[in-house]
Amino acid sequence: MTSQAITEQIKLKKSFLCVGLDPDKKKLPPHFAGIADSIYEFNRQIIDATQEYAIAFKPNIAFYECLGIEGWKQLELTVQYVRDRYPGLLLIADAKRGDIGNTSKKYAETYFHHFDFDAVTVAPFMGSDSVIPFLEYPGKWVILLALTSNPGAEDFQFLCNTKQERLFESVIKQSLTWGHQENLMYVVGATKASMLVKIREIAPDHFLLIPGIGAQGGDLAEVARYGLNSNCGLIVNSSRAIIYADSTDRFAEVAADKAKEVQLQMAVLLRESGLLE
Amino acid sequence: MTSQAITEQIKLKKSFLCVGLDPDKKKLPPHFAGIADSIYEFNRQIIDATQEYAIAFKPNIAFYECLGIEGWKQLELTVQYVRDRYPGLLLIADAKRGDIGNTSKKYAETYFHHFDFDAVTVAPFMGSDSVIPFLEYPGKWVILLALTSNPGAEDFQFLCNTKQERLFESVIKQSLTWGHQENLMYVVGATKASMLVKIREIAPDHFLLIPGIGAQGGDLAEVARYGLNSNCGLIVNSSRAIIYADSTDRFAEVAADKAKEVQLQMAVLLRESGLLE
Repeated sequence: MTSQAITEQIKLKKSFLCVGLDPDKKKLPPHFAGIADSIYEFNRQIIDATQEYAIAFKPNIAFYECLGIEGWKQLELTVQYVRDRYPGLLLIADAKRGDIGNTSKKYAETYFHHFDFDAVTVAPFMGSDSVIPFLEYPGKWVILLALTSNPGAEDFQFLCNTKQERLFESVIKQSLTWGHQENLMYVVGATKASMLVKIREIAPDHFLLIPGIGAQGGDLAEVARYGLNSNCGLIVNSSRAIIYADSTDRFAEVAADKAKEVQLQMAVLLRESGLLE
Repeated sequence: MTSQAITEQIKLKKSFLCVGLDPDKKKLPPHFAGIADSIYEFNRQIIDATQEYAIAFKPNIAFYECLGIEGWKQLELTVQYVRDRYPGLLLIADAKRGDIGNTSKKYAETYFHHFDFDAVTVAPFMGSDSVIPFLEYPGKWVILLALTSNPGAEDFQFLCNTKQERLFESVIKQSLTWGHQENLMYVVGATKASMLVKIREIAPDHFLLIPGIGAQGGDLAEVARYGLNSNCGLIVNSSRAIIYADSTDRFAEVAADKAKEVQLQMAVLLRESGLLE
């Protein structure tokens, strides 16, 4: 998917929302207990209910992997469902993979060949040869961790080097030489929204994936203020605040309400920035 | 498994070798083509042939994950086989996972609960809450990436902060406050053996997992010289140089020869360091 196609979807839906599909069996509404392919069924209903308000869906692989073969099957069913039913949606594998070159090549095969994801999140710690194999698939995206939304982000990502450059800045600067605006995005936590000023200086035109809205407490208006560019340039994720907003058999309806709430805020922000007519 | 149990195995086998199980269908000997569970069959024969010379086996998850459900099944069969047949062996999941707290908890469940691995490799970029959930399983190990064996290690791991501390040193120092010698090891690439001097200053007593011997060119004698401590403190991995040493139906026999070669060198090094009678 090209950046232009993403921007077109954003304008069409007046939304830059990504819904995180992090299904935890213990948190599913009780009527899913004991039914076959319960995670896929839950995802399917969430997708149907919220796709009108979202441009992307992002399964976090941990929530599938922890169930072994069964989890892998739920993920395959979910990806296939989105591909068949809603071809315009951006599908992001939140995998945070990264290994030596010949091994990252296998991970890239997993997400871009075995599965047909559009994008995969990648961890930068191991450097260029751990990231580049993911960048070699035309039309696919690496979303590189730069500044994450969790408390532990403080441990290393802000370490300042002797050139007065923080680690997250070095990650973005270096990686700009590995990829370009059509195959590389960055993860920047909404909980660190003011850092977007610095990040937009380094990477004014790249898309950014922003987690941390909702359960993690990030502020959407602040993210938009510092992060929007002339192509929108933002994809903002919410997982728990949408998919677990209700735990009864009305969960999908309530998830849709929550997604719509965010979408309406996004429409205002897009309009204020001149991105919508 | 305790560090004492690991050291006892090392003394018993006169070896600190870990064999990496990175099975690539394209590289298996031709007689595996078309047989059911070919990856498990390949692994099983490698394990049977080399276990006499090794204290640990380390499947790299990428090589299973890229096959989807089938790969996951091969991994489950492999882990079960080692557990049933060779209970003294250390089983390491080379997964390099790491995510926000509630998600890392799911990854920890995958490797320590769904699978019964003894250890899992974890990426440090996201900091404390991405690592700590893995440290909460008694008797299990986190092997944290510190200094990796690949060329990309130069990109960020050597960045020097304003306290004149390189990133890999900061990772080790900070993480010493999250875990201890009985639940935390570090990955240090054999291709960076001279750095072991500095690392042994910071973490004299921790076990280190050393990849990069063999195909990646690291030197075993140099690793031992700078890395051995009074409990051995080293687990040295070789993958491709052992499992793909031969591509005929004699592959397992040749793998055993290669593993024995390394084991004999290790026995000499252990004896020279006074670790064997």
